[in-house]
Amino acid sequence: MTLEPFFSPEGVVVVGVSQDPSKLGYAIARNLACCGYKGAVHLVNPRGGEVLGKSLHQGILQVPDPVDLAVLLIPAPSVPQALLECAERGIRAVIIASGGFREIGAEGAEIEARCLELAREHNIRIVGPNCVGLLDTHYPLNTTFLPPPGPDAGDVALISQSGALCDVVIDWARGQGFGISRLLSLGNQVDVTETDMLSPLVDDPETRVITLYLEGIVDGRRFVEEAAKASRVKPLVALKVGRFAAGRKAAVSHTGALAGEDRAYCAAFKKAGVIHANTTEEMFDWARCLAWSPLPKGRRTAVLTNAGGPGVTAADSIEACGLELSTLSDSTICELRSILPAAASVYNPVDLLPTATPELYASVLKRLIDDPLVDNVLVILPPPPKSVAGEFGKALVSVIKSSEKPVLGVLMGDSLICEAVELFRAARIPDYRFPERAASALAVLCERAEYLRRAEEEDVEFEEPEGICKEAARAAFDGFRSRHKGGLIPQGIARRILESYGIPFLPEGTAQTPEEASAISLRIGFPAALKIISPSISHKSDVGGVRLDLKNEAEVEFAAIRMIEDIRRACPGAEVEGLLVQRMARVGQEVIIGVVQDKQFGPLVMFGSGGAEVEGLKDIGFALAPVTMKEAARLMDSTWAGKKLYGYRNLSPADRNTVLESICRISLLAADFPEIHEMEINPLRVMEEGKGAFALDVRLVAAKTL
Amino acid sequence: MTLEPFFSPEGVVVVGVSQDPSKLGYAIARNLACCGYKGAVHLVNPRGGEVLGKSLHQGILQVPDPVDLAVLLIPAPSVPQALLECAERGIRAVIIASGGFREIGAEGAEIEARCLELAREHNIRIVGPNCVGLLDTHYPLNTTFLPPPGPDAGDVALISQSGALCDVVIDWARGQGFGISRLLSLGNQVDVTETDMLSPLVDDPETRVITLYLEGIVDGRRFVEEAAKASRVKPLVALKVGRFAAGRKAAVSHTGALAGEDRAYCAAFKKAGVIHANTTEEMFDWARCLAWSPLPKGRRTAVLTNAGGPGVTAADSIEACGLELSTLSDSTICELRSILPAAASVYNPVDLLPTATPELYASVLKRLIDDPLVDNVLVILPPPPKSVAGEFGKALVSVIKSSEKPVLGVLMGDSLICEAVELFRAARIPDYRFPERAASALAVLCERAEYLRRAEEEDVEFEEPEGICKEAARAAFDGFRSRHKGGLIPQGIARRILESYGIPFLPEGTAQTPEEASAISLRIGFPAALKIISPSISHKSDVGGVRLDLKNEAEVEFAAIRMIEDIRRACPGAEVEGLLVQRMARVGQEVIIGVVQDKQFGPLVMFGSGGAEVEGLKDIGFALAPVTMKEAARLMDSTWAGKKLYGYRNLSPADRNTVLESICRISLLAADFPEIHEMEINPLRVMEEGKGAFALDVRLVAAKTL
Repeated sequence: MTLEPFFSPEGVVVVGVSQDPSKLGYAIARNLACCGYKGAVHLVNPRGGEVLGKSLHQGILQVPDPVDLAVLLIPAPSVPQALLECAERGIRAVIIASGGFREIGAEGAEIEARCLELAREHNIRIVGPNCVGLLDTHYPLNTTFLPPPGPDAGDVALISQSGALCDVVIDWARGQGFGISRLLSLGNQVDVTETDMLSPLVDDPETRVITLYLEGIVDGRRFVEEAAKASRVKPLVALKVGRFAAGRKAAVSHTGALAGEDRAYCAAFKKAGVIHANTTEEMFDWARCLAWSPLPKGRRTAVLTNAGGPGVTAADSIEACGLELSTLSDSTICELRSILPAAASVYNPVDLLPTATPELYASVLKRLIDDPLVDNVLVILPPPPKSVAGEFGKALVSVIKSSEKPVLGVLMGDSLICEAVELFRAARIPDYRFPERAASALAVLCERAEYLRRAEEEDVEFEEPEGICKEAARAAFDGFRSRHKGGLIPQGIARRILESYGIPFLPEGTAQTPEEASAISLRIGFPAALKIISPSISHKSDVGGVRLDLKNEAEVEFAAIRMIEDIRRACPGAEVEGLLVQRMARVGQEVIIGVVQDKQFGPLVMFGSGGAEVEGLKDIGFALAPVTMKEAARLMDSTWAGKKLYGYRNLSPADRNTVLESICRISLLAADFPEIHEMEINPLRVMEEGKGAFALDVRLVAAKTL
Repeated sequence: MTLEPFFSPEGVVVVGVSQDPSKLGYAIARNLACCGYKGAVHLVNPRGGEVLGKSLHQGILQVPDPVDLAVLLIPAPSVPQALLECAERGIRAVIIASGGFREIGAEGAEIEARCLELAREHNIRIVGPNCVGLLDTHYPLNTTFLPPPGPDAGDVALISQSGALCDVVIDWARGQGFGISRLLSLGNQVDVTETDMLSPLVDDPETRVITLYLEGIVDGRRFVEEAAKASRVKPLVALKVGRFAAGRKAAVSHTGALAGEDRAYCAAFKKAGVIHANTTEEMFDWARCLAWSPLPKGRRTAVLTNAGGPGVTAADSIEACGLELSTLSDSTICELRSILPAAASVYNPVDLLPTATPELYASVLKRLIDDPLVDNVLVILPPPPKSVAGEFGKALVSVIKSSEKPVLGVLMGDSLICEAVELFRAARIPDYRFPERAASALAVLCERAEYLRRAEEEDVEFEEPEGICKEAARAAFDGFRSRHKGGLIPQGIARRILESYGIPFLPEGTAQTPEEASAISLRIGFPAALKIISPSISHKSDVGGVRLDLKNEAEVEFAAIRMIEDIRRACPGAEVEGLLVQRMARVGQEVIIGVVQDKQFGPLVMFGSGGAEVEGLKDIGFALAPVTMKEAARLMDSTWAGKKLYGYRNLSPADRNTVLESICRISLLAADFPEIHEMEINPLRVMEEGKGAFALDVRLVAAKTL
């Protein structure tokens, strides 16, 4: 069933309307009446009466057509009956605003479960319970009980797992100069979740950016899938709270949501193309820019200012955010030199000096936009005398509106700049008070543009690595599980499983004679190690059963002869099954590739600096498995361990390609075998370019079976 | 000479007054007239006439008493003559507001130099040139030409190297609800610098916090000294721009200031107790809190909210900022349980539910403040219906004003919350729109409290490490410099210099006989290495002249006998000077200790993960040399290399103390020998606790002499 009736119903019935203006049951009726909603409004209270000049129906069944959305604000125990009446009345979209459900304990949870049952049975979709409701400023519709005024109409949508945040954003957004398209509070999410609501927002023509306030996600994989689809169409910006242990505790006690690990969310958002904000302000700073600015071609940014200090601050911020201060073209520099006073700076940041008029600002801005070496512009304006702020605003807005490149306003100050601010906002040009926040928003805009370009490329070229034999891995894995209730899988079996997925180990072979050992060593390469295979010898090296660093086939053969002699002497009766010939690992760089299972998002693959200090150095990154080669490359490049594989000082370039492939293969294995609880290659020793890499130690833990 | 006449003159003369209201020469006269200044105002223009009802004097010499401050806004070439006239008239404090000096090139720089000469000659102090001037809102005085209105009176002072930022802050601060005590724009700083201005702000009873916008500092060491003194009395919060290469370029082209390395500034600010802000907003978010809040006893923070979402966000932010979410005492929990509804949360964050009244908020807040397990409180209030925002404000303010613990307001929203906001601001209680920013400010307040406690402790206990022989180091260093024009100092000499400062190297000794070698080895410890000393043998190991891993004195003696035989055989004529016996380094942790010279702040000492990947891992920290043991400990603990010295997994606790001492000693050496351009012990190998640490490789570069 489509969720559209939640946003554009033909008729709404509010159940639990109150005549007392201090009650929420009055507030819903008031908001619905005042918001400009053009459909039918029906108000229900068993006691009857009149509210806002409308007479109250005594029950849902008495409500006339049209009606396709119900808002329930009645005590929890009465809700199941109301749902039945909705079903009978043909209403398929119900918002349960009331509390008293899961959030208060077992009794409430039971009622909540009953509601879900009824909804499934009668093909009803529920938003809530324990929620603020939702609104659409364009249709328009407002089913919330929040204090007026409602939000200005705009193009930023908000999906929120906190009702209070809806209250905050509606009020605060007005002061920030942006409007809302659709806003919804999800409450306990007994039925409709944040994931369900993505598609009505993607389809809404008035929504240009979707923001999400999340405390937890239940079905992580489905969210990633849906969000990935959505973010190809519109930018999604998410704030995930409950990141820390302390925060999580609070989240659990409040919404009952299962808050996942922060790193899993980071990896999931990355996979889905969801832009990950750190603070509420950041989320909306970015959202305004994403909603209003054209997408840039690149990161080269020009700064236009009439004062040095803010220019330097902007240059700093540009660098700090990973943008690039453009080098202006010679022709721009010449032209600026011809029109600006001698003391002005014609280089980037371009400083017009405090005497600059609105006309000069506008014409230099136009010149910068036209420079082919400039992708974006930050225009800085410190507080001018109040009389002229509007003139600056007008002059700049007219140039910016006709620009195909992003231009962000850094309109500094408060009352002295407000006329310019209002003109920018009316023209939907993002404005910020300080360069730092503008640069941060611009950097996100650049990332969005890069994401879309990349997504297009990567759509066509996903291919699974060759030579994967899932059946062999399955056989080895199931063989172990048939004998054990999960736990650590022995090295030999782990090796077989990983080798089935093409993970390289050092080659080895078993010989029966010194000549055979020599031949095997020639095949697998040097240096070689030779080890006696004998069930009756436990400490091989004590009896001469281990020889290391053998440099050629002659050394191997000679060592094998001597070894057999030594063993015969030292352990006359020992049963010898053969000689294990192993290639020894040469010196190389060492990395770790790991897999962990996240309960929200499934398997994550980890890459980074290996060894014993993984947790200490924290030079690691995570990605949602499985990963493509390009994702693996981004994961690698995000760590120092990955960067130095390109070569660094006395380290030659290493075999990056084998590492990339290994990451992909491990990630596939993890995705194919959800029963793998944990896996780690530490280290994977990486040889020079073209010389491969080898898993030296493997730890594979199967999930416990019951 | 005191700088106080700049802020509280008895009479001010403005030179270069204009009758045209669009000119800055008019604006200064207007601001001075309108700001409430109670001293004498004299206006000068050679053409005479009248401005704002005051007749203009034709020259400085014609100005009557009292006059002790001059503001010059005349063309640069006329300024030297005006300075002479000021001198003649007995004026010792001059603000040169005009531009046209160093910032426009050589010609302007010459005039600027001439001004400084005259000032020195006539005992005049100059603020500027090329500056906005300064103001004091309490005296009051306003010598700027900035557009009105001037700032509200308050307790935050600003020292700014950007005039535009003064313009911005005056306007923006009003919207943020805080006032300014003194504000000054330094311009080109031909004479008075940011460092000079610290003391007038420390002495100003109306200033509670000093903020600094810095693009560069010329005399870094003097700044550190003065700022360290100042920050014992009042908090200093600094924003340093020009952090990045691109930013620096802009700074240089603008003010001609020499921008130093970011890390040197970080280290200098840390040494001086200056709080280092990353953005302009952060600087003032923090400043308000530092100005208005009592100092906390600790980091345990309670959150009071009526909604879950903002509570979780606050809990996250508390954790992210290094604060601690308090565990409430049992008695608080009991009491809360008895007065709150069942669905409320009585744990931290305490959630009163949306139905909470102002009275409930106030009484629970009081309870939290009284809890001995709580050091600080964040009170969160989402937008209430407009009618009651003021009631919430009143109820909370009265509790907070009588609290000795910091309570910060998170008053969320915009117009619906504004009445509460105004009440908080009037009562000088810091308010923020979002929990993230409140937590950040609170964390800085905690750091300030810790800094003051620490400063008190550390004042009494500085002591130089023992056994430093500066003369020996000086002799070795000068010996090298007498023969070379700086550059890399040979290992042997470098070792001698470092050993004079007590840096431990592996012990060694020279023996003439095998018996002597054996005795030496017994003294210096095992494993030992034995090396032939012979000027005629260049590749010692080729002729048996190196023996490693000798485990006891018998092995040493036997190896020495064999070595002498081998050498006699292999190089019959070789002149043998003796046998070098060296202790070999056991396995241990490895760290780097380095020194770099910063041109602003002098020697910095570096500590971190050693090896070849220092730059890649970036696990390093810097501190201004010399450092105390406590500073060395903080430097160490800021890195992973330092943390793992405590022991980690299979790494036993290492000899931290020797590392600490080594850092102090190296830092002293660096401070004593400014001719040391660069120095690095990489690695310092650190043994287990009590077993010492040894410099295995040293690189010491002397500055080039001319």
